Amino acid sequence: MKPLILLSNDDGVRAKGLNSLIEMLRPLGDLFVIAPDRGRSGASCSITTPLPITIKRLRGEEGLTVYSCTGTPADCVKLALDQLLMRQPDLVVGGINHGTNASTNAHYSGTVGVATEGALHGLPAIAYSLLDYDEDADFSPLTPYVRRIADYVLRQGMPYGSILNVNFPVAEHYAGMKVCRMGYSRWENEYTPCERPEGGRYFWLGGEFVDDEPDETDTDVWALDRDYVAITPLKLDNTDYQLLHQMENELSEDSLSADKAGEEQQEPSSTL
Amino acid sequence: MKPLILLSNDDGVRAKGLNSLIEMLRPLGDLFVIAPDRGRSGASCSITTPLPITIKRLRGEEGLTVYSCTGTPADCVKLALDQLLMRQPDLVVGGINHGTNASTNAHYSGTVGVATEGALHGLPAIAYSLLDYDEDADFSPLTPYVRRIADYVLRQGMPYGSILNVNFPVAEHYAGMKVCRMGYSRWENEYTPCERPEGGRYFWLGGEFVDDEPDETDTDVWALDRDYVAITPLKLDNTDYQLLHQMENELSEDSLSADKAGEEQQEPSSTL
Repeated sequence: MKPLILLSNDDGVRAKGLNSLIEMLRPLGDLFVIAPDRGRSGASCSITTPLPITIKRLRGEEGLTVYSCTGTPADCVKLALDQLLMRQPDLVVGGINHGTNASTNAHYSGTVGVATEGALHGLPAIAYSLLDYDEDADFSPLTPYVRRIADYVLRQGMPYGSILNVNFPVAEHYAGMKVCRMGYSRWENEYTPCERPEGGRYFWLGGEFVDDEPDETDTDVWALDRDYVAITPLKLDNTDYQLLHQMENELSEDSLSADKAGEEQQEPSSTL
Repeated sequence: MKPLILLSNDDGVRAKGLNSLIEMLRPLGDLFVIAPDRGRSGASCSITTPLPITIKRLRGEEGLTVYSCTGTPADCVKLALDQLLMRQPDLVVGGINHGTNASTNAHYSGTVGVATEGALHGLPAIAYSLLDYDEDADFSPLTPYVRRIADYVLRQGMPYGSILNVNFPVAEHYAGMKVCRMGYSRWENEYTPCERPEGGRYFWLGGEFVDDEPDETDTDVWALDRDYVAITPLKLDNTDYQLLHQMENELSEDSLSADKAGEEQQEPSSTL
């Protein structure tokens, strides 16, 4: 049986990045695509809780089914796995995103959200992004890399709870692929305030990206700056084990008791 | 100068959990509150990108300012830090959430999103949640613990890029506090399909929580089941270092070159 690959994105079902990905992955298996009916950039791993979601079948042909969905990227993956697919997919893929999801930007990414949701269901998962926000960006140079990485994961599988976050630089020739860690970065001057005609302010999100570790050579930001395809393995378990052990040592049994905490209600103690 | 504490949540500015938190933390410092104007449960670390956001000042008194915001929980934190606050807060706090954010649920949590956004700005941050979805839940038993943990973080600080995800069980007496790792769990039977009057289906999110590690005694799920207050330290850098090193070894220099990838475009190789 051919591999079954579940695809989604956060730029919406009509985005060029998703439709390029469909063409790239068709040789590798049967594709089931379900993606938001509109742009949901920055959706992270959000889910729709206060309202129900609906779907619409857009394409159905040999080896390819496409749905649009009113939900978030994570909703799309959830719904496909719970209600729409007859068997478990062999791979869940998000993308190809129009714009970077490298570094700590992964926390905001709906594309990474797709892969995270796949991993939350115990499935191997990949998020692909190109560092080009243009809605007509050229995705064709990515083709051999996208296929190679997907093929690798289909053959090797992934450890439970892990995903690959793959980012492509905008470059005439790639320097190769590099496996990296998530670099620390931040955004500065994030909002532009504007005056409403009737008074009051509104705020547009934007900002400037700042690499907090410009001298570190093992980050995804470093690799992308040097025209490498950056492959960053991420995991669902983001426990800070170092801090966990440190805090365990600081917590004396004495300070743990409910009674003790109750007594000191009015005067917080200096130890936990 | 008194500590400055920035508060937000994902249940909306009028939620009892947030307003209980305000009363609990007032003795510890000056509070600046900015929270979504409506429920944004499941917002994760999502941000509002396609439209601007607006704010409304609801309260302003000695030591307490409250705004509502049309954006997500993460937007609220971003906007406060970039546009509204005159100085950096000493602590960012999300909550108190109505419902669990333990285990892998943290990935969906707007409350954890608040703390994540704080950490993305280099600030110490805590997310508080009570395992009770009732909008009139009783938060008063949490008071000494919420204060004690906030006081601990204000005094000790936090390592860069780390947050505390604190979950409270529903219990008459807490067994104490326990520092835990994020447990693996999943949701089953997540959607209830319904028929639209005019034909077609819509889907309500729900589902049953499944603890994937019932025999492990170091998880937050285990601690909560035994009436402990569960403190789970999380970090922004969720690189899977074990997989990173494994993949680095598998990637031969040969297979990295762009030319090689190009050549094999039509026939993906079995190695990366």
